[in-house]
Amino acid sequence: MTDDERAIRALVDDWMAATRSGDVATVLGLMTDDAVFMVPGREPFGKEVFAAASGDMRGAEIDGNSDIVELAILGDWAWMRARITMSMTPPGGAAPMRRSGYTLTILRKEADGKWRLARDANLLTEEK
Amino acid sequence: MTDDERAIRALVDDWMAATRSGDVATVLGLMTDDAVFMVPGREPFGKEVFAAASGDMRGAEIDGNSDIVELAILGDWAWMRARITMSMTPPGGAAPMRRSGYTLTILRKEADGKWRLARDANLLTEEK
Repeated sequence: MTDDERAIRALVDDWMAATRSGDVATVLGLMTDDAVFMVPGREPFGKEVFAAASGDMRGAEIDGNSDIVELAILGDWAWMRARITMSMTPPGGAAPMRRSGYTLTILRKEADGKWRLARDANLLTEEK
Repeated sequence: MTDDERAIRALVDDWMAATRSGDVATVLGLMTDDAVFMVPGREPFGKEVFAAASGDMRGAEIDGNSDIVELAILGDWAWMRARITMSMTPPGGAAPMRRSGYTLTILRKEADGKWRLARDANLLTEEK
């Protein structure tokens, strides 16, 4: 495994760990300032909207798992496919919502030598 | 505009034109043999499943438009975000189904010098 691959796998692990613990500041530090997120049925959104949406989830219990299916490193860029399962339990004892599916992600190694998420297409759907 | 950017824009135009005219063979020639397509709510699928699904659409009238929102070329690889609108009218006069949304696509310049679609995350949803 190359250093770049190791760094990207650590980024994916760190992202999920910070999401689980509700550490929004850490998650925001793992994306580029111009990051763009795409989900079905709405316009793409950036870092500020991501931050606001994460703030709205405060108090929810989030768990999840991210498996990298494919990873291609192209110099200072990389693309990755992952399979993700997530569960989100709202505060107050409501039933957990489970989502699963795939992502296609573009990553970038920035000037400080750190890999960050730059573009993300999230195809997760609710499990019935 | 570089030759590579011109070639990728031509690929997008050719893909849409071939889709409109039901020319499945041409569309299949515009993707790599290992192409992977991702849509919400199902497992990723490859070229053979794409071909079979396109065969099932035979007789439908398809129209669409693809606008490239971002395009980054990284040597023999590229990634692209596009906004797509599609309408599909089944044979027999049923009402057209309209879908719109974004795609995140990985493209590859293969050994023959031609750019082809390699991975595609399709976030289009039905317009109500």
